[in-house]
Amino acid sequence: MATVEQENHEKGDRWEARRQEIVDIAARLFAERGYTATGVAELCRETGLGKGSLYYYIGSKERLLAEIHGSVLNPLVDETRKIAASTDPPEAKLRRMTETMLAAIVHHMDHVWVFLHEWKALRGRNASSFRDKRRAVEDVLESILQEGVDRGDFDIPDLRIATLAWFGMVNYTYQWYRSEGRLSPELIGQYYHQLFTQGIFSAAKR
Amino acid sequence: MATVEQENHEKGDRWEARRQEIVDIAARLFAERGYTATGVAELCRETGLGKGSLYYYIGSKERLLAEIHGSVLNPLVDETRKIAASTDPPEAKLRRMTETMLAAIVHHMDHVWVFLHEWKALRGRNASSFRDKRRAVEDVLESILQEGVDRGDFDIPDLRIATLAWFGMVNYTYQWYRSEGRLSPELIGQYYHQLFTQGIFSAAKR
Repeated sequence: MATVEQENHEKGDRWEARRQEIVDIAARLFAERGYTATGVAELCRETGLGKGSLYYYIGSKERLLAEIHGSVLNPLVDETRKIAASTDPPEAKLRRMTETMLAAIVHHMDHVWVFLHEWKALRGRNASSFRDKRRAVEDVLESILQEGVDRGDFDIPDLRIATLAWFGMVNYTYQWYRSEGRLSPELIGQYYHQLFTQGIFSAAKR
Repeated sequence: MATVEQENHEKGDRWEARRQEIVDIAARLFAERGYTATGVAELCRETGLGKGSLYYYIGSKERLLAEIHGSVLNPLVDETRKIAASTDPPEAKLRRMTETMLAAIVHHMDHVWVFLHEWKALRGRNASSFRDKRRAVEDVLESILQEGVDRGDFDIPDLRIATLAWFGMVNYTYQWYRSEGRLSPELIGQYYHQLFTQGIFSAAKR
């Protein structure tokens, strides 16, 4: 017979899986119709839940939006901090940052669409938590760029613009990437990394 | 006494100015609340027009969305084609492209927000016209990059990814730019151009 702990754990896993499923469905709906235009009735219809059950899992529509943002940002904060903490040289860290960000984007296209378009709808603690985590990932990149400058590997006149330019180049992939397209995430990542580190000038122009 | 032509011209100018004003108000509303969530009643309240007058100026809510996209893209198609057609060397053309795109973004933050978030809501001729113009501006950049490759100035393994990376870096500015911030559009443009052409590697790393 299962212990209470085991039962709770099992219930916790199922509960968490169901929660994640609801978050994913909401991400698709918000991406298709927009956060404001998506009603609780529509969320209930698509998740197959009653209004009470939906709130039991999620709490509120804004909480659902915050969960979508968290499902993009929480793993990225952890993964990118691990990259920064490794003993790899800065260029190798930067390459892994590009791969990690691109994987997150192409595997969560709906979430990233909602993430980039609806963050202004977050309020209070949800808004500040979002800003803190977004800034944490930006800070990781900036620290890697700084490390490269300190070692003499990188030459960067403005770290903040370089950071935002990198996020622009990488994040914008959500606007045009198609999984059935010519370009694999691996190839895109390689080219991004080459562009960002070497630029487009030929040897003759340098 | 004014001729019919003069009267029509005068009427045309006022008409056009009023139309543009309506488009700008709609861009602000769509940026704040989303296209789907913004109702015709709200558009009437904010423009001070009755429903009939609104349709008289614009035709439909989707037409209004198409006008917002056009107000970003139409001048860009013209201006960027002029840049490409000039006798400047490719690097100078690329620099002017960066300046032109950044100016368009920082002077039309609401329009660009709507432009990048709501293009999937366009249908039929509005959708194909949008895609054609967006592609026209992308093609201008790609032609400048190709010209640089042909002259031996640029070394680019994949023109399409380089084009999309450039648009990512530049367009993404709409996510973070604030006119009261530390960074002027001119400075941002200079750094973007330097990053894209030279990358971040120091001379020692090349």
